[in-house]
Amino acid sequence: MRPSGRKLDQMRAVSFERGFSKHAEGSCLVRFGDTHVLCTASLEERVPPWLRNGGKGWVTAEYGMLPRATGDRMRREASAGKQGGRTQEIQRLIGRSLRAVVDLEALGERQITIDCDVIQADGGTRTAGITGAWVALHDCLKWMEARSMVKVDRVLKDHVAAVSCGIFAGQSVLDLDYLEDSAAETDSNFVMTGSGGIVEIQGTAEGVPFSQEQFLELMLLARSGISGLVQMQKDTIA
Amino acid sequence: MRPSGRKLDQMRAVSFERGFSKHAEGSCLVRFGDTHVLCTASLEERVPPWLRNGGKGWVTAEYGMLPRATGDRMRREASAGKQGGRTQEIQRLIGRSLRAVVDLEALGERQITIDCDVIQADGGTRTAGITGAWVALHDCLKWMEARSMVKVDRVLKDHVAAVSCGIFAGQSVLDLDYLEDSAAETDSNFVMTGSGGIVEIQGTAEGVPFSQEQFLELMLLARSGISGLVQMQKDTIA
Amino acid sequence: MRPSGRKLDQMRAVSFERGFSKHAEGSCLVRFGDTHVLCTASLEERVPPWLRNGGKGWVTAEYGMLPRATGDRMRREASAGKQGGRTQEIQRLIGRSLRAVVDLEALGERQITIDCDVIQADGGTRTAGITGAWVALHDCLKWMEARSMVKVDRVLKDHVAAVSCGIFAGQSVLDLDYLEDSAAETDSNFVMTGSGGIVEIQGTAEGVPFSQEQFLELMLLARSGISGLVQMQKDTIA
Amino acid sequence: MRPSGRKLDQMRAVSFERGFSKHAEGSCLVRFGDTHVLCTASLEERVPPWLRNGGKGWVTAEYGMLPRATGDRMRREASAGKQGGRTQEIQRLIGRSLRAVVDLEALGERQITIDCDVIQADGGTRTAGITGAWVALHDCLKWMEARSMVKVDRVLKDHVAAVSCGIFAGQSVLDLDYLEDSAAETDSNFVMTGSGGIVEIQGTAEGVPFSQEQFLELMLLARSGISGLVQMQKDTIA
Amino acid sequence: MRPSGRKLDQMRAVSFERGFSKHAEGSCLVRFGDTHVLCTASLEERVPPWLRNGGKGWVTAEYGMLPRATGDRMRREASAGKQGGRTQEIQRLIGRSLRAVVDLEALGERQITIDCDVIQADGGTRTAGITGAWVALHDCLKWMEARSMVKVDRVLKDHVAAVSCGIFAGQSVLDLDYLEDSAAETDSNFVMTGSGGIVEIQGTAEGVPFSQEQFLELMLLARSGISGLVQMQKDTIA
Amino acid sequence: MRPSGRKLDQMRAVSFERGFSKHAEGSCLVRFGDTHVLCTASLEERVPPWLRNGGKGWVTAEYGMLPRATGDRMRREASAGKQGGRTQEIQRLIGRSLRAVVDLEALGERQITIDCDVIQADGGTRTAGITGAWVALHDCLKWMEARSMVKVDRVLKDHVAAVSCGIFAGQSVLDLDYLEDSAAETDSNFVMTGSGGIVEIQGTAEGVPFSQEQFLELMLLARSGISGLVQMQKDTIA
Repeated sequence: MRPSGRKLDQMRAVSFERGFSKHAEGSCLVRFGDTHVLCTASLEERVPPWLRNGGKGWVTAEYGMLPRATGDRMRREASAGKQGGRTQEIQRLIGRSLRAVVDLEALGERQITIDCDVIQADGGTRTAGITGAWVALHDCLKWMEARSMVKVDRVLKDHVAAVSCGIFAGQSVLDLDYLEDSAAETDSNFVMTGSGGIVEIQGTAEGVPFSQEQFLELMLLARSGISGLVQMQKDTIA
Repeated sequence: MRPSGRKLDQMRAVSFERGFSKHAEGSCLVRFGDTHVLCTASLEERVPPWLRNGGKGWVTAEYGMLPRATGDRMRREASAGKQGGRTQEIQRLIGRSLRAVVDLEALGERQITIDCDVIQADGGTRTAGITGAWVALHDCLKWMEARSMVKVDRVLKDHVAAVSCGIFAGQSVLDLDYLEDSAAETDSNFVMTGSGGIVEIQGTAEGVPFSQEQFLELMLLARSGISGLVQMQKDTIA
Repeated sequence: MRPSGRKLDQMRAVSFERGFSKHAEGSCLVRFGDTHVLCTASLEERVPPWLRNGGKGWVTAEYGMLPRATGDRMRREASAGKQGGRTQEIQRLIGRSLRAVVDLEALGERQITIDCDVIQADGGTRTAGITGAWVALHDCLKWMEARSMVKVDRVLKDHVAAVSCGIFAGQSVLDLDYLEDSAAETDSNFVMTGSGGIVEIQGTAEGVPFSQEQFLELMLLARSGISGLVQMQKDTIA
Repeated sequence: MRPSGRKLDQMRAVSFERGFSKHAEGSCLVRFGDTHVLCTASLEERVPPWLRNGGKGWVTAEYGMLPRATGDRMRREASAGKQGGRTQEIQRLIGRSLRAVVDLEALGERQITIDCDVIQADGGTRTAGITGAWVALHDCLKWMEARSMVKVDRVLKDHVAAVSCGIFAGQSVLDLDYLEDSAAETDSNFVMTGSGGIVEIQGTAEGVPFSQEQFLELMLLARSGISGLVQMQKDTIA
Repeated sequence: MRPSGRKLDQMRAVSFERGFSKHAEGSCLVRFGDTHVLCTASLEERVPPWLRNGGKGWVTAEYGMLPRATGDRMRREASAGKQGGRTQEIQRLIGRSLRAVVDLEALGERQITIDCDVIQADGGTRTAGITGAWVALHDCLKWMEARSMVKVDRVLKDHVAAVSCGIFAGQSVLDLDYLEDSAAETDSNFVMTGSGGIVEIQGTAEGVPFSQEQFLELMLLARSGISGLVQMQKDTIA
Repeated sequence: MRPSGRKLDQMRAVSFERGFSKHAEGSCLVRFGDTHVLCTASLEERVPPWLRNGGKGWVTAEYGMLPRATGDRMRREASAGKQGGRTQEIQRLIGRSLRAVVDLEALGERQITIDCDVIQADGGTRTAGITGAWVALHDCLKWMEARSMVKVDRVLKDHVAAVSCGIFAGQSVLDLDYLEDSAAETDSNFVMTGSGGIVEIQGTAEGVPFSQEQFLELMLLARSGISGLVQMQKDTIA
């Protein structure tokens, strides 16, 4: 039995609130249950130094957490003077995941920065972030299309979404919330495209190593979860 | 004529959304028009080193802005590796303003940290922050009262709220939004208590110095604006 | 009775020692009693990036305190690895105050940096700093005039000086020293021009909020104090 | 055809040089071809604050690269003033991998820090690091056993080793070197125990997403490679 | 011919202004010509962690330069966020030099921090700093003796002073000023005690290596210069 | 009697392992007994900003120590966020020493960075580093000569090598190891050229000041040690 009463293969309630931010070219508040992440896409007419004059663009991401997004207040990274290892790991993952479905040449020599800021956390902030970031990115490209800068379909090759799975109380479950995440024996994050391609896999044994069979079971759950998320993305932007 | 069409002494639409954050002991999303600040109050059973074993508590504040809260994306302070001068100035102001209405001895040897995070900015983030922070602080004390830790009325001596005023296009106006703020000749922030006492005054000439008469006119506007804000705080917590 | 025996509206002994520094284009050691601040003005033929090729110049300020300028030794900011919030607040204030009386276009595309370094502190370092910085800035412009770079009168539109006032032992007093500052109920800093315009007002209640009447009383004291400081600036540069 | 002429499932020449460092309680210079990583294990009789007085120990890792370990000189992180995101990601991975086979209670309230310093890099530094770190850790525990502090077999529950696999020129290959890594379409790191349990999986699509079949092929290669590495660890410590 | 017209073995005008700082337990403004260094000695009733409960005290030094102490304005280290290599080298030298003549056990478990802040620079700031620091340290110990905390003669075993020598325009000269220092072929700093013992020698060839004979010539000059400085210290504290 | 059984004027076993690093243009693992320093020379076709377009090149050095190069593990500087004062002092010394024998104009507008990384420490890391750095620099220039970029003999004017001497147990000894260094009354580092010119002298009294006679004795020892090191450099590159 899961603490939330969900079935083993049941996602939390997911919602996308587009245009949450007045200023950003694209934005989306994504909710996976009590995990709420604000994703904004910011367009800049410049690229990082190593790409200059190459005709290619760039998509990058930053990740942050409000200090009291969590059960206990965490130290503000701006005040600590640096981003922690976990933050850097997550923002690198989000950036890679999005770039996997973007044609950087079709984007042109511009940079889109996706900020994923966790307003409230209850497990799965990175997977919610990736899933919402795709919507913000899409809307940013729509904004650009309206100004004849790009064709959305040429730049955005596919959907991308993510979900976590894990072994909780001996059973494989989909979309871990914080209570499950804290107690899980194994925690895996999967990032996949709308057409089912795998973009990223991160599997970690917390305590006991896991077997290949267990891992395949988790991947099966993830595939079904991501398939649902992609459908919701489609409904959202329709 | 103000860009927003407001009258000279008219505030923007103000609202308080209590309990916005699931985890914090007290929280409030305050909106002054398009300026949205999430204020959370976090209780800790420890005080800064210089207060230890003195029986007194502490109230402090931190301030942050999401990178794309503004029209152009600003660099994330956590990634820049330090909080800028403006951020530090504002968080010190918020902390002082709240402490002016708190009896630190009645609070007991505990610390309450108020985080004011700007989700969307359109001028007046510090004044909205102070006004919303009071609600978050109040609700945190209510939470403590429910656990017999304090009496709210003994700790919280008065309301505190804040508003900005300035001289825009030659006329004194209340509650500057971003368009007005950018063009204002003079920009003043006032922090006052529910009983009309002054807690903080910050007046700055942008360009042309101002006269004492002009300053008194701004203070008059501020007094009326703050009086309305305090009434809304009362309605909110009623 | 004030600890120093001064009358309520009496400034400390004030002096300006021009040309204190051999290397700087302009310099002044200003003394407000036992508060000694060395102000140097440094000319550079470049402006910050955001002003480049705009034909306008810039005046900025930095503030520092020798570690043992104070009663107890304070940690050296260079060794701590960052400037504290108070330092940043003060140096921003000094810069704004000076720019209020400078015609940046007449200055031309150059930057003047005013360094205010506190050699010895006894309260009022920021107000002494602003008052002395004006003299250093004036002398720097004189140095430039001697080289036909600018006309002093075209660049420097007015005097600017500053003083603190506060409510000490229930009475409004002018130019707080450290003993008074530590015990004051209210502490206000006023920055005004030679022609009486207000450039900056910072009023803070330490503990008990103050009334509008009290504030006006402080402003009256400040006006008289600043008027005297401006006269001394005039005598100094004559 | 692989640039090195290796077969698809062929590892580079692997060697372990135990006791490379005179001072460390355990040390090992591990070589995967031209990738050389010095792993040292340092014992300290204290644990991180959050473990104090709990009777459990801790194993952690740090990772670094000499500036000219690579083809182009990289900036020294000590001089840059911070560890990059990649460094933090890798050292967190190494630490987690080792802890998966350590009984922290049997270790007792002590910390072992594994430093993995890359003397020369040619791809696969993190997998070589994990594999060599296990040997250094083992030898540190032997050192402790000789002083009757622990029983090696009680603390070290299993072997752990790691290898990277990827899709290079359309084919799945084992143990990527730098040339392959730079051109690979998919890059995966696998960490497994001596008994075949999976500790960590990191799979990343560089460019084109990959399929589940491809991933299983990579995992099969990894399993065979790690099995060989574990055998070599056994031979080394025999 | 030296730029200043001094003879080869002639020091600049040297002076000590004791009690320059109102707050410090000991202080001295030392002048070597146009090089002015403010030295303050601050007593604290605590020692660094590695000395705790050992009955021994500590003497340490910090060094700083006002940004416009030099011909061109230098970046403020507090704003740069760190102390440069030169600063650290000098403050370590000053600390070692003073400790060479202090009996740390007779001092007792206390720390004296000497701050050497360069108000104006014209070459030889480190040697002036050491020479003035001794006076500040002496006066701090006098202050302590007056409070029956120590006996000056038991703690301070000897004088210590320093001077630079170099080969300028082919000739060995004493006490280099900035013009000479910039053009010198060899620059050496000598720190010696009142009884002629050598505490520190730093000799550096700028360009052409120097011979042993040249070095001995510089040491001879230094010995005579330091002997004069020690006599002046004696006169000053008499 | 020395702890190692060496004679007073006997160096430790010294060896140079050229080409230790596959990637660097020049590299050398130098061993002074148990002190092992990896020196790599990296060529870049750019110079620091202050040398641009001047036709001159630059040689600089960086120094680091692996955390467990020493008896107790030292904190990794990259993780501490800055290089300590000792590190900066040493890398400045190494850079100056090498530049003393390089014709920067003959090098052309390029930079060579020498990294000296201590793999294992047993005293004398800076002197071993300088001595090995010369070999790495030489081999880098050879690499350049093979590509017709420079003539080695035009750029490299002489050998440079270094050794430490000190007074241990009352006697002057050559090439201190860690045990001697920790107990030495005086510690001096000498850097000299192949033709006997002095490049750097650093002498420090640890505790008791030393006399001129003692210092000359140390210099004599150093001269003989360095003469042997230069011969070994010659044999190595022959």
